[in-house]
Amino acid sequence: MSRAIPINYCTQCGESVSLKTPADDDRARHICDACGYIHYQNPKVVNGAIVEWENRILLCKRAIEPRYGYWTLPAGFMENGETTYQGAIRETWEEARANIEIEGLYLTANLPHINQIYMLFKAKLKNVDFGPGPESLEVALFDEEDIPWNELAFPVIKTGLELYLENRREGHFPFRMIDIVRHDDTNQTLEVSVIK
Amino acid sequence: MSRAIPINYCTQCGESVSLKTPADDDRARHICDACGYIHYQNPKVVNGAIVEWENRILLCKRAIEPRYGYWTLPAGFMENGETTYQGAIRETWEEARANIEIEGLYLTANLPHINQIYMLFKAKLKNVDFGPGPESLEVALFDEEDIPWNELAFPVIKTGLELYLENRREGHFPFRMIDIVRHDDTNQTLEVSVIK
Repeated sequence: MSRAIPINYCTQCGESVSLKTPADDDRARHICDACGYIHYQNPKVVNGAIVEWENRILLCKRAIEPRYGYWTLPAGFMENGETTYQGAIRETWEEARANIEIEGLYLTANLPHINQIYMLFKAKLKNVDFGPGPESLEVALFDEEDIPWNELAFPVIKTGLELYLENRREGHFPFRMIDIVRHDDTNQTLEVSVIK
Repeated sequence: MSRAIPINYCTQCGESVSLKTPADDDRARHICDACGYIHYQNPKVVNGAIVEWENRILLCKRAIEPRYGYWTLPAGFMENGETTYQGAIRETWEEARANIEIEGLYLTANLPHINQIYMLFKAKLKNVDFGPGPESLEVALFDEEDIPWNELAFPVIKTGLELYLENRREGHFPFRMIDIVRHDDTNQTLEVSVIK
Protein backbone atom coordinates (compact mmCIF):
# COMPACT_ATOMS: atom_id res chain seq x y z
CA MET A 1 0.00 0.00 0.00
CA SER A 2 1.00 3.57 -0.44
CA ARG A 3 2.58 5.55 2.36
CA ALA A 4 0.58 8.45 3.76
CA ILE A 5 1.01 10.73 6.75
CA PRO A 6 -1.19 9.67 9.69
CA ILE A 7 -3.93 12.10 10.68
CA ASN A 8 -5.17 11.83 14.26
CA TYR A 9 -7.05 15.07 14.78
CA CYS A 10 -9.24 17.34 12.67
CA THR A 11 -7.48 20.38 11.18
CA GLN A 12 -10.72 22.34 11.38
CA CYS A 13 -12.03 21.70 14.93
CA GLY A 14 -9.30 19.68 16.72
CA GLU A 15 -11.52 16.67 17.50
CA SER A 16 -10.53 13.06 16.70
CA VAL A 17 -10.87 11.57 13.24
CA SER A 18 -11.75 8.08 11.99
CA LEU A 19 -10.89 6.31 8.76
CA LYS A 20 -14.22 5.89 7.00
CA THR A 21 -15.46 5.85 3.42
CA PRO A 22 -17.59 8.94 2.73
CA ALA A 23 -20.93 8.58 0.95
CA ASP A 24 -20.38 8.79 -2.84
CA ASP A 25 -16.74 7.78 -2.43
CA ASP A 26 -14.94 4.46 -2.87
CA ARG A 27 -12.05 4.73 -0.46
CA ALA A 28 -11.43 5.48 3.21
CA ARG A 29 -10.57 9.04 4.25
CA HIS A 30 -9.80 10.60 7.63
CA ILE A 31 -13.19 12.06 8.61
CA CYS A 32 -13.75 14.19 11.72
CA ASP A 33 -15.93 12.47 14.32
CA ALA A 34 -17.31 15.85 15.42
CA CYS A 35 -17.66 18.17 12.41
CA GLY A 36 -17.47 15.66 9.56
CA TYR A 37 -14.62 17.41 7.73
CA ILE A 38 -12.95 15.08 5.22
CA HIS A 39 -9.14 15.20 5.11
CA TYR A 40 -8.13 14.24 1.58
CA GLN A 41 -4.53 13.21 1.01
CA ASN A 42 -3.05 13.38 -2.45
CA PRO A 43 0.29 12.79 -4.15
CA LYS A 44 2.98 15.44 -3.98
CA VAL A 45 4.94 16.75 -6.94
CA VAL A 46 8.74 16.98 -6.95
CA ASN A 47 10.11 19.46 -9.51
CA GLY A 48 13.69 19.31 -10.62
CA ALA A 49 16.06 19.95 -13.47
CA ILE A 50 18.70 18.25 -15.58
CA VAL A 51 20.97 21.23 -16.04
CA GLU A 52 23.78 21.37 -18.62
CA TRP A 53 26.78 23.60 -19.13
CA GLU A 54 28.99 22.73 -22.10
CA ASN A 55 27.76 19.11 -22.11
CA ARG A 56 28.42 18.67 -18.40
CA ILE A 57 25.60 18.00 -15.96
CA LEU A 58 25.01 19.75 -12.64
CA LEU A 59 24.80 17.49 -9.59
CA CYS A 60 24.42 18.28 -5.89
CA LYS A 61 25.81 16.23 -3.01
CA ARG A 62 23.06 16.02 -0.40
CA ALA A 63 23.65 17.65 3.01
CA ILE A 64 20.32 16.31 4.32
CA GLU A 65 18.62 12.98 4.90
CA PRO A 66 17.48 10.84 3.25
CA ARG A 67 20.63 9.83 1.33
CA TYR A 68 23.00 12.29 3.00
CA GLY A 69 26.26 12.42 1.04
CA TYR A 70 24.81 11.01 -2.19
CA TRP A 71 24.62 12.93 -5.46
CA THR A 72 21.33 14.11 -6.92
CA LEU A 73 19.78 16.47 -9.43
CA PRO A 74 18.46 19.71 -7.98
CA ALA A 75 14.83 18.86 -7.11
CA GLY A 76 12.31 19.29 -4.33
CA PHE A 77 8.67 19.52 -3.38
CA MET A 78 6.59 21.92 -5.42
CA GLU A 79 5.12 24.76 -3.36
CA ASN A 80 1.64 26.25 -3.48
CA GLY A 81 1.43 29.32 -5.69
CA GLU A 82 4.11 28.35 -8.20
CA THR A 83 4.20 26.60 -11.57
CA THR A 84 6.06 23.33 -12.14
CA TYR A 85 8.96 25.03 -13.93
CA GLN A 86 9.11 27.82 -11.34
CA GLY A 87 9.53 25.04 -8.77
CA ALA A 88 12.44 23.60 -10.74
CA ILE A 89 14.08 27.04 -11.04
CA ARG A 90 13.60 27.71 -7.30
CA GLU A 91 14.95 24.32 -6.22
CA THR A 92 18.00 24.72 -8.45
CA TRP A 93 18.69 28.07 -6.84
CA GLU A 94 18.14 26.73 -3.30
CA GLU A 95 20.29 23.63 -3.71
CA ALA A 96 22.92 24.73 -6.22
CA ARG A 97 22.81 28.56 -6.15
CA ALA A 98 22.54 28.30 -9.92
CA ASN A 99 20.44 30.32 -12.35
CA ILE A 100 18.94 28.24 -15.11
CA GLU A 101 16.97 28.63 -18.30
CA ILE A 102 14.21 26.03 -18.69
CA GLU A 103 14.03 24.35 -22.12
CA GLY A 104 11.02 22.11 -21.46
CA LEU A 105 9.65 19.22 -19.42
CA TYR A 106 11.76 16.15 -20.12
CA LEU A 107 10.60 13.41 -17.76
CA THR A 108 7.66 12.59 -15.53
CA ALA A 109 8.16 9.70 -13.11
CA ASN A 110 5.31 8.06 -11.22
CA LEU A 111 6.28 6.76 -7.77
CA PRO A 112 2.92 5.51 -6.49
CA HIS A 113 4.35 3.60 -3.50
CA ILE A 114 5.50 6.90 -1.98
CA ASN A 115 2.71 9.07 -3.45
CA GLN A 116 5.04 11.22 -5.51
CA ILE A 117 5.41 12.44 -9.08
CA TYR A 118 8.78 13.71 -10.27
CA MET A 119 8.79 16.29 -13.04
CA LEU A 120 12.31 16.87 -14.36
CA PHE A 121 12.92 19.74 -16.76
CA LYS A 122 15.68 20.03 -19.35
CA ALA A 123 17.59 23.21 -18.59
CA LYS A 124 20.85 25.01 -19.12
CA LEU A 125 22.96 27.12 -16.80
CA LYS A 126 22.86 30.85 -17.50
CA ASN A 127 26.41 31.20 -16.21
CA VAL A 128 28.95 29.20 -14.21
CA ASP A 129 28.30 30.93 -10.91
CA PHE A 130 27.04 28.18 -8.64
CA GLY A 131 27.77 26.61 -5.29
CA PRO A 132 26.20 24.64 -2.46
CA GLY A 133 23.01 25.97 -0.88
CA PRO A 134 22.15 24.94 2.70
CA GLU A 135 20.89 21.49 1.61
CA SER A 136 24.03 20.61 -0.39
CA LEU A 137 27.56 19.68 0.68
CA GLU A 138 28.98 20.26 -2.78
CA VAL A 139 27.79 21.16 -6.29
CA ALA A 140 29.69 20.21 -9.42
CA LEU A 141 29.47 19.79 -13.19
CA PHE A 142 30.10 16.25 -14.45
CA ASP A 143 31.12 14.96 -17.84
CA GLU A 144 29.08 11.89 -18.79
CA GLU A 145 31.98 9.52 -18.07
CA ASP A 146 32.50 11.00 -14.60
CA ILE A 147 28.94 10.72 -13.30
CA PRO A 148 29.11 8.88 -9.93
CA TRP A 149 26.55 6.21 -10.87
CA ASN A 150 27.05 4.25 -7.66
CA GLU A 151 26.66 7.31 -5.49
CA LEU A 152 23.39 8.65 -6.90
CA ALA A 153 20.74 9.32 -4.26
CA PHE A 154 17.59 7.83 -5.79
CA PRO A 155 16.58 5.39 -8.55
CA VAL A 156 14.55 8.10 -10.28
CA ILE A 157 17.71 10.22 -10.60
CA LYS A 158 19.70 7.31 -12.04
CA THR A 159 17.02 6.30 -14.55
CA GLY A 160 16.31 9.91 -15.49
CA LEU A 161 19.98 10.55 -16.22
CA GLU A 162 20.36 7.29 -18.16
CA LEU A 163 17.40 8.14 -20.41
CA TYR A 164 18.59 11.70 -20.83
CA LEU A 165 22.10 10.69 -21.87
CA GLU A 166 20.69 8.09 -24.26
CA ASN A 167 18.52 10.80 -25.83
CA ARG A 168 21.45 13.20 -25.96
CA ARG A 169 23.52 10.68 -27.92
CA GLU A 170 20.58 10.39 -30.34
CA GLY A 171 20.31 14.17 -30.50
CA HIS A 172 16.64 14.54 -29.59
CA PHE A 173 14.69 14.84 -26.36
CA PRO A 174 11.16 13.49 -26.60
CA PHE A 175 9.02 13.74 -23.47
CA ARG A 176 9.49 10.59 -21.37
CA MET A 177 7.35 8.95 -18.69
CA ILE A 178 8.49 6.23 -16.31
CA ASP A 179 7.07 4.28 -13.39
CA ILE A 180 9.16 3.40 -10.37
CA VAL A 181 7.21 1.00 -8.19
CA ARG A 182 8.03 -0.91 -5.04
CA HIS A 183 5.64 -3.84 -4.84
CA ASP A 184 4.27 -5.02 -1.49
CA ASP A 185 5.45 -8.57 -1.97
CA THR A 186 8.97 -7.70 -3.06
CA ASN A 187 9.73 -4.93 -0.65
CA GLN A 188 13.35 -4.54 -1.58
CA THR A 189 12.88 -4.57 -5.33
CA LEU A 190 12.07 -1.48 -7.30
CA GLU A 191 10.51 -2.04 -10.70
CA VAL A 192 11.45 0.65 -13.19
CA SER A 193 9.31 0.76 -16.35
CA VAL A 194 9.75 3.15 -19.22
CA ILE A 195 6.16 3.91 -20.22
CA LYS A 196 7.17 6.05 -23.16
CA MET B 1 -1.87 34.89 -3.31
CA SER B 2 -2.60 31.26 -3.77
CA ARG B 3 -5.58 29.61 -2.18
CA ALA B 4 -4.90 27.01 0.50
CA ILE B 5 -7.11 25.17 2.97
CA PRO B 6 -6.98 26.76 6.45
CA ILE B 7 -5.44 24.61 9.20
CA ASN B 8 -6.52 25.46 12.74
CA TYR B 9 -5.44 22.40 14.73
CA CYS B 10 -2.54 19.95 14.63
CA THR B 11 -3.25 16.67 12.84
CA GLN B 12 -0.83 14.89 15.19
CA CYS B 13 -1.80 16.10 18.68
CA GLY B 14 -4.95 18.23 18.24
CA GLU B 15 -3.48 21.43 19.72
CA SER B 16 -3.64 24.82 18.00
CA VAL B 17 -1.27 25.82 15.21
CA SER B 18 0.31 29.14 14.21
CA LEU B 19 1.59 30.40 10.88
CA LYS B 20 5.34 30.70 11.35
CA THR B 21 8.42 30.28 9.20
CA PRO B 22 10.42 27.23 10.33
CA ALA B 23 14.18 27.50 10.79
CA ASP B 24 15.92 26.72 7.46
CA ASP B 25 12.76 27.59 5.53
CA ASP B 26 11.73 30.71 3.67
CA ARG B 27 7.96 30.67 3.95
CA ALA B 28 5.30 30.43 6.63
CA ARG B 29 3.82 27.02 7.48
CA HIS B 30 1.16 25.93 9.95
CA ILE B 31 3.27 24.78 12.92
CA CYS B 32 1.82 23.15 16.03
CA ASP B 33 2.14 25.33 19.14
CA ALA B 34 2.49 22.20 21.30
CA CYS B 35 4.41 19.49 19.44
CA GLY B 36 6.04 21.56 16.69
CA TYR B 37 4.70 19.44 13.82
CA ILE B 38 4.91 21.30 10.50
CA HIS B 39 1.87 20.99 8.22
CA TYR B 40 3.16 21.38 4.67
CA GLN B 41 0.61 22.16 1.97
CA ASN B 42 1.42 21.43 -1.65
CA PRO B 43 -0.28 21.62 -5.03
CA LYS B 44 -2.69 18.90 -6.10
CA VAL B 45 -2.63 17.09 -9.42
CA VAL B 46 -5.70 16.68 -11.60
CA ASN B 47 -5.45 13.80 -14.07
CA GLY B 48 -7.71 13.62 -17.08
CA ALA B 49 -8.01 12.46 -20.65
CA ILE B 50 -8.82 13.73 -24.11
CA VAL B 51 -10.56 10.61 -25.38
CA GLU B 52 -11.32 9.95 -29.04
CA TRP B 53 -13.58 7.54 -30.89
CA GLU B 54 -13.59 7.88 -34.68
CA ASN B 55 -12.44 11.52 -34.48
CA ARG B 56 -15.11 12.42 -31.96
CA ILE B 57 -14.20 13.59 -28.45
CA LEU B 58 -15.74 12.36 -25.22
CA LEU B 59 -17.22 15.05 -22.97
CA CYS B 60 -19.10 14.82 -19.67
CA LYS B 61 -21.82 17.19 -18.47
CA ARG B 62 -21.10 17.91 -14.81
CA ALA B 63 -23.62 16.75 -12.18
CA ILE B 64 -21.62 18.43 -9.39
CA GLU B 65 -20.43 21.88 -8.42
CA PRO B 66 -18.43 23.81 -9.40
CA ARG B 67 -19.83 24.38 -12.89
CA TYR B 68 -22.85 22.08 -12.59
CA GLY B 69 -24.35 21.52 -16.04
CA TYR B 70 -21.25 22.52 -17.98
CA TRP B 71 -19.27 20.16 -20.21
CA THR B 72 -15.82 18.93 -19.31
CA LEU B 73 -13.21 16.31 -20.09
CA PRO B 74 -13.12 13.37 -17.68
CA ALA B 75 -10.65 14.51 -15.00
CA GLY B 76 -10.24 14.61 -11.24
CA PHE B 77 -7.85 14.68 -8.33
CA MET B 78 -5.08 12.11 -8.42
CA GLU B 79 -5.22 9.66 -5.50
CA ASN B 80 -2.40 8.34 -3.34
CA GLY B 81 -1.08 4.99 -4.56
CA GLU B 82 -1.75 5.48 -8.28
CA THR B 83 0.21 6.72 -11.27
CA THR B 84 -0.80 9.78 -13.28
CA TYR B 85 -2.20 7.71 -16.15
CA GLN B 86 -3.96 5.32 -13.77
CA GLY B 87 -5.66 8.41 -12.35
CA ALA B 88 -6.82 9.42 -15.82
CA ILE B 89 -8.14 5.91 -16.52
CA ARG B 90 -9.95 5.79 -13.15
CA GLU B 91 -11.52 9.24 -13.57
CA THR B 92 -12.72 8.40 -17.07
CA TRP B 93 -14.36 5.28 -15.69
CA GLU B 94 -15.91 7.13 -12.73
CA GLU B 95 -17.27 10.03 -14.75
CA ALA B 96 -18.01 8.46 -18.13
CA ARG B 97 -18.12 4.69 -17.46
CA ALA B 98 -15.70 4.42 -20.36
CA ASN B 99 -12.68 2.15 -20.81
CA ILE B 100 -9.75 3.90 -22.43
CA GLU B 101 -6.32 3.16 -23.78
CA ILE B 102 -3.75 5.81 -22.87
CA GLU B 103 -1.52 6.98 -25.75
CA GLY B 104 0.65 9.42 -23.79
CA LEU B 105 0.71 12.63 -21.80
CA TYR B 106 -0.46 15.46 -24.01
CA LEU B 107 -0.76 18.57 -21.84
CA THR B 108 0.36 19.84 -18.46
CA ALA B 109 -1.31 23.01 -17.24
CA ASN B 110 -0.02 25.04 -14.31
CA LEU B 111 -2.76 26.77 -12.30
CA PRO B 112 -0.73 28.36 -9.49
CA HIS B 113 -3.53 30.61 -8.21
CA ILE B 114 -5.51 27.51 -7.18
CA ASN B 115 -2.47 25.30 -6.42
CA GLN B 116 -3.28 22.76 -9.13
CA ILE B 117 -1.57 21.02 -12.02
CA TYR B 118 -3.66 19.44 -14.75
CA MET B 119 -2.17 16.49 -16.61
CA LEU B 120 -4.28 15.57 -19.62
CA PHE B 121 -3.54 12.35 -21.49
CA LYS B 122 -4.27 11.56 -25.12
CA ALA B 123 -6.41 8.42 -25.16
CA LYS B 124 -8.83 6.41 -27.23
CA LEU B 125 -12.00 4.57 -26.31
CA LYS B 126 -11.65 0.79 -26.25
CA ASN B 127 -15.32 0.46 -27.24
CA VAL B 128 -18.45 2.61 -27.41
CA ASP B 129 -19.91 1.40 -24.13
CA PHE B 130 -20.09 4.50 -21.96
CA GLY B 131 -22.55 6.51 -19.94
CA PRO B 132 -22.85 8.92 -17.05
CA GLY B 133 -21.24 7.99 -13.73
CA PRO B 134 -22.57 9.57 -10.51
CA GLU B 135 -20.76 12.89 -11.15
CA SER B 136 -22.10 13.33 -14.69
CA LEU B 137 -25.55 14.23 -16.04
CA GLU B 138 -24.72 13.09 -19.55
CA VAL B 139 -21.76 11.75 -21.54
CA ALA B 140 -21.43 12.15 -25.30
CA LEU B 141 -19.03 12.03 -28.25
CA PHE B 142 -18.65 15.32 -30.12
CA ASP B 143 -17.44 16.07 -33.61
CA GLU B 144 -15.10 19.07 -33.63
CA GLU B 145 -17.75 21.37 -35.08
CA ASP B 146 -20.28 20.39 -32.41
CA ILE B 147 -18.12 21.02 -29.32
CA PRO B 148 -20.12 23.31 -26.99
CA TRP B 149 -17.38 25.94 -26.64
CA ASN B 150 -19.56 28.31 -24.64
CA GLU B 151 -20.65 25.60 -22.24
CA LEU B 152 -17.23 24.23 -21.26
CA ALA B 153 -16.65 24.06 -17.52
CA PHE B 154 -13.13 25.47 -17.13
CA PRO B 155 -10.60 27.55 -19.10
CA VAL B 156 -8.06 24.70 -18.92
CA ILE B 157 -10.54 22.43 -20.71
CA LYS B 158 -11.19 25.00 -23.43
CA THR B 159 -7.51 25.76 -24.03
CA GLY B 160 -6.55 22.08 -23.84
CA LEU B 161 -9.14 21.18 -26.49
CA GLU B 162 -8.17 24.10 -28.72
CA LEU B 163 -4.50 23.09 -28.68
CA TYR B 164 -5.39 19.44 -29.20
CA LEU B 165 -7.58 20.13 -32.22
CA GLU B 166 -4.93 22.42 -33.69
CA ASN B 167 -2.36 19.62 -33.29
CA ARG B 168 -4.79 17.10 -34.76
CA ARG B 169 -5.21 19.22 -37.88
CA GLU B 170 -1.41 19.29 -38.17
CA GLY B 171 -1.28 15.54 -37.59
CA HIS B 172 1.17 15.47 -34.67
CA PHE B 173 0.86 15.74 -30.91
CA PRO B 174 3.93 17.21 -29.23
CA PHE B 175 3.84 17.50 -25.45
CA ARG B 176 2.39 20.88 -24.47
CA MET B 177 2.63 22.99 -21.35
CA ILE B 178 0.45 25.97 -20.49
CA ASP B 179 -0.02 28.39 -17.61
CA ILE B 180 -3.43 29.60 -16.53
CA VAL B 181 -3.00 32.37 -14.00
CA ARG B 182 -5.39 34.67 -12.22
CA HIS B 183 -3.44 37.70 -11.09
CA ASP B 184 -4.23 39.41 -7.79
CA ASP B 185 -4.70 42.80 -9.37
CA THR B 186 -6.98 41.62 -12.16
CA ASN B 187 -9.14 39.22 -10.26
CA GLN B 188 -11.56 38.52 -13.07
CA THR B 189 -9.02 38.01 -15.80
CA LEU B 190 -7.34 34.71 -16.46
CA GLU B 191 -4.08 34.86 -18.35
CA VAL B 192 -3.52 31.79 -20.51
CA SER B 193 0.05 31.32 -21.77
CA VAL B 194 1.26 28.54 -24.00
CA ILE B 195 4.72 27.81 -22.60
CA LYS B 196 5.53 25.23 -25.23
